Parts: sequence; C-alpha cells; structure tokens
Amino acid sequence: MDKETTLAGSVDSQLVNDVLAAFFDRAKNRAEGMHPDYRTMWEHLEAGTTGGKRFRPRLVLAVYSLLGGTDLTTAATVAASFELLHTALIVHDDVVDRDFARRGVPNVSGAYRNRAAAQGNPPARAEHAGLSVGVIAGDLALCNAYRLLGEVDTDPVTRRKLGDLLDEAIFASAAGELLDVLAPLDPTPQPVDEVLDMARLKTAVYSFEAPLQAGAVLAGAEDRLVNTLGEFGRCLGTAYQVADDLIGVFGDETRTGKVGWGDLREGKRTALTSYAAEQPQWPRIAVLLSTPDLSAAGAAEARELLIESGARDRSMQLAADLTDRALQALLDPSVPEGLRNGLAPLSDVVIDRVRV
Amino acid sequence: MDKETTLAGSVDSQLVNDVLAAFFDRAKNRAEGMHPDYRTMWEHLEAGTTGGKRFRPRLVLAVYSLLGGTDLTTAATVAASFELLHTALIVHDDVVDRDFARRGVPNVSGAYRNRAAAQGNPPARAEHAGLSVGVIAGDLALCNAYRLLGEVDTDPVTRRKLGDLLDEAIFASAAGELLDVLAPLDPTPQPVDEVLDMARLKTAVYSFEAPLQAGAVLAGAEDRLVNTLGEFGRCLGTAYQVADDLIGVFGDETRTGKVGWGDLREGKRTALTSYAAEQPQWPRIAVLLSTPDLSAAGAAEARELLIESGARDRSMQLAADLTDRALQALLDPSVPEGLRNGLAPLSDVVIDRVRV
Repeated sequence: MDKETTLAGSVDSQLVNDVLAAFFDRAKNRAEGMHPDYRTMWEHLEAGTTGGKRFRPRLVLAVYSLLGGTDLTTAATVAASFELLHTALIVHDDVVDRDFARRGVPNVSGAYRNRAAAQGNPPARAEHAGLSVGVIAGDLALCNAYRLLGEVDTDPVTRRKLGDLLDEAIFASAAGELLDVLAPLDPTPQPVDEVLDMARLKTAVYSFEAPLQAGAVLAGAEDRLVNTLGEFGRCLGTAYQVADDLIGVFGDETRTGKVGWGDLREGKRTALTSYAAEQPQWPRIAVLLSTPDLSAAGAAEARELLIESGARDRSMQLAADLTDRALQALLDPSVPEGLRNGLAPLSDVVIDRVRV
Repeated sequence: MDKETTLAGSVDSQLVNDVLAAFFDRAKNRAEGMHPDYRTMWEHLEAGTTGGKRFRPRLVLAVYSLLGGTDLTTAATVAASFELLHTALIVHDDVVDRDFARRGVPNVSGAYRNRAAAQGNPPARAEHAGLSVGVIAGDLALCNAYRLLGEVDTDPVTRRKLGDLLDEAIFASAAGELLDVLAPLDPTPQPVDEVLDMARLKTAVYSFEAPLQAGAVLAGAEDRLVNTLGEFGRCLGTAYQVADDLIGVFGDETRTGKVGWGDLREGKRTALTSYAAEQPQWPRIAVLLSTPDLSAAGAAEARELLIESGARDRSMQLAADLTDRALQALLDPSVPEGLRNGLAPLSDVVIDRVRV
C-alpha cells in the first residue's frame, strides 16, 4: 500500500504527520526517562513510520471531509491511530516473515540485528535479538493505536463505534495473519475463495474497510452508509491484494521495489496459485515453487507456465471484477454524490496495478 | 508469579474467571465466524490463561475490597484486563525466549510448532511457525486488555486514570523486556542498580504496582495513597524478582518446576551476577556461564563460586532490604489500617522464596 494514490480533494496528510510527530516526541521523552536504549528503540519505530504514503489516514480524512466534516484535528487523531495500527502490523509481519528491511533500509528488527552483530554476536543470535525487538516495538505501536483513539474528543456513542472499528480491524487482520502463517505448512492447494477470504481478513479490513468507515462514523454518517463503505472497502481491498500478488510475480522489480517471485517461493497462497492448481501445468509449477533458491531461468519458466495455464489472466479478471463490485457498491442511494465521485478514483489503485 | 500467595480476605478469583470465560467465549464464537483455525488459536490462548494463580487480578480485588469497594463485578473486569496483559506479556516473552512450554505443557507457540511438525515440516520451519502464531496470539491478548478496560462502567476521570495505569504498565514492561533482550548481547557486566531497574520495569510495574494502584483508583482513593501503593509495589516486585533469580539458580527444581541454572546459562543479568562480577571468582564464573550445555558438575561449581564470592548472601540481603522498604511504605498515614494489615502478608511471597 506504499503506492501513491489519487484521492479526491488531495487530502493533506500533514495534520496526521503532526499528530504522529507529537505522539512520538512524548513517547521518546518518556522512554528516555526509563533508559537511553529505550528512547533509541522509539526512534527506530518512528523512522519505520516515516516515508509511508499514509494511505489509511488519508482514507479516514477523505471520507470525513467529503461528508462535510470540519474538525480535521480530531479526524487526524483517528487517522493517526490507524497509521499506528498499520505500523504495528507491518513490524510484526516482518518478524513473521523474517524480513530485516523495508523500502531498502533496515527496519526495527534489522537495526537491532545489525547492532547485535556489531557487538560480536553470531548471526543466528543477532537475528533472534532483532526479531525480539521487533515483537516489543510492534506491541507498543499496537497499544498506542488504542491510546490515540482514546484521546479523541467525541461523544460516547461515536467513541464506542470507533473503538469497535479498530477492534474489528485488529481481530480480522490477526485472523488473516494466522491463516497466512498456517497455509504454507499444509501442502494442499487452497480454493480461490479461501485465498480471497484470507486477503480480505489480512489486508482489506484494516487497510480499506475500517478507515473508510471510521471517517464516516466520525462525520456522523447513518449505519447504511457505513455498511456500504464497508462493502466498497472489502471488495476494493481484496482486489488490491490480488493485484499485488500479480505484481509480485510479473511486475517489474525496478518499478515495484520488490524482489519478484519472492512471495510465491515462500509458499504463500495467492489467487494465482489457486487457479494454477486446477490446471495440468500445476505439477511442474509446484516443483518449481518448492525449489530452494530458484534460478532466474526457473522463475521465468514458472511465469510462463502460470500464463499458459490461464492463471494470470483469470487473476487479472478477478481483480477487475472485484473492483467493479466495489464501484457498484458506491451506487447505493446512501452514498452522497460528492463522496461517490471522491472515492471512485481509488479504483485506479487497483487498475493501475493490474496493468503489469 | 505462579506461586500461591496469601492475600487478606482470601479474595475469590472466581469472578475474574467468569469475566475471562465470558470474554473468551465471545472471542471464540467471533473467531469461528472467520475461520475454524482461528477459533482453535483462541482456544490455545485461553488454555494458556487457565491454571495461573490470578496473582494480578487478586491484587486489584484485594485493594479494592480492603478500601471498601463493593462493586466486585466492575472490579473483576479491571482485574481481568490485567490478567490479559499478563497473558500477552508471557506469550510474547516465550517468543523472545524461544520457550515452547509453560508449566510443562505446550504453550501457544508449542502447540503450533507441534502441529507444523506433524504436517511434515522441518524443525526450524515448524519452530518459526510456532513463534509466529505466538506473536499473533500475544497481540490479541494485548489489544483485549484495552478492550476489557474500555468496558468498565465508571466515570470519565476514573476511566482515564485506569487507562493511564494500564498504559504505564505496558510502557514499562516493554522497556524492561527490551533491556532484557539487549543486555546479554553486550558482555560487560552490569551494576546491580541497572539490574534492579530492569527488574522493576519488566515485572514490578505491571505485576505489583499497577494492579495495586488500579484497585485503589477504582475505589476512589486519593492520589497520595495511590502513590504510596506504587512505592510498595515497586519495592516488593523488585524484591520478588531478586528472589526469583536466586530460586532459578539455587532452588529445588522439583519444587519450583523450573530448570535450575537455565536463566544464567542464557546470559540473563541478575543481582547475583552483578555482585559476583565484583569478586575474584568472576573470571571462572564467567567462563562457566558462557559454556554451552553446561554439565551438572559445571553448574555445581558455578553455584559454589557464587556462594564463595558472597553473591548469594548479598542477593538474599538485597531481597530482604527491598521487602523491608515495601513494608515501610505501608506505614505512610495515607494507608488505612485495614489495607496495611491486608497487604503486609504479601511480603511472605518474597520471604518464602528467599528461604532456598
């Protein structure tokens, strides 16, 4: 979700950055009172939140503004809470994936792995120390998503609804992460419906559905509109994940900044592999996927087989269909025209990605 | 903190168990709606919370009752929130320590490591899967500590104070856990003051100080009493940790259920090693501590050297002094006599442990 996106009204994320900067300043000062090393950890955590595109906060602010909300300071606090949730989830996701860098620079775990290695510790010990600090740092980001939301100055009913949305986002993304961990352990291919369920739980709820709904709740929207935005976010977020998986395999590495093929090699389940598993090319693809250190030639062969099996085209069509369903949801009469026009360009996030 | 303790009024933790059982029932049903595997994970998380002594909840309830509080249902919800925090911290602590069992049965990580191994995955992969599920399960326990506290039916000021206590507990224990991860990576021995700071941050705040204070806040106590209880809990909790480290090295394994020597072999910093590091026996002790798979004879030699260096006696004295300071704090005039008499037996928790 690090890609630049077009959102109506070109919502400024400076307010959110201000809330986050003030939050991290408080945390760093408080941490320093306990131990200098603790402050340093907070600095690494803060560094991990900068440079992102503030996608979720911008969804909160966009919906809130498009529905006529004017208290942007309060909205920015809600938005910042979703950004901290995102930080927590990527820090812990990196622990689960044993990733030590993000956007080419060491993440929290990477920074502490490097530090431990520089102190003369053997690689395995340094790695585990790095991952351990990642667990701790992610915990703090997660707790403070709740704390920030608790600071929002609003009436009890709105506060409860916002709390429920954050809770649902966390409950669902944990389910998605769990299924993501468990799926590759069982060699049976999964039907595409299960893969989509996992994508929805892991990404769509917290990255699309909940932030869109939070903006609406804060603007005082009726339940029907909130539900409609949920449906829009769910479909669009799932489409995004299907597109993202396509990019991971067929995308241009220099453009996406991702190492192509990486996810599939790790046994991740995607719509692509589910479709391929139904076709005669699958046994050969499965052999390639389970090859450690797959060569460039092997990866190229697997890509060809995924195209030949029709899996790529079916995945692209799936992403397009889900995007259409998202746009259909916006036609519900509960959606004011300004909001509809403002959110529709979000589908470009997906459409652009599928043009691989 | 799994040891049975005497608390005045023999507070019944059944109410807390009821709150937790209702919470887990809701979570399991909700999880089942997402995926059967998700429900299973919640069952493992719940199993990890049963069998404990509910030490922190009992502190909350004891202080609340001793100060005349009568709404035990509300107090039990606050108490349950601290139990979920404890669950989160031990689940994540086990991830950091790569422990796959607790009290002799597989913990969440152990259950999923075993499951992955049974599915035919190699040991390293199965272990990492287990630890990954531990990260996720701990996250959920942590978030729901906030959620449970949010359900407490009280006035806004009390609610804010309780939120601040939970926040301080998490902020401090994360600092302690961080220092605990970082310390063994640097071979320089630490002064005893730093070791005590770490123990206070990692254990005393969330296990003693915050639950005691939460019970008082909920009972409407004045600030001075809340601060006094903080001092009492800080000293007693730190004493507890010093005693616990002594038990870990000198205790009877069959009685404590712990593998003696385990913590020191992993390079953990304790008052014991800090004191020993000042003495001529240290170079030999340091060699023994850094020996992988230290033999029983090697462990016995190290124990003898720790006694000979005076480190054991000094640690025992330290635990006794800290316990005295805790009891001194209770003499503050802000502490009603009933509360003082009710809490004083808590010092037995420490005194009993030091009788090794």
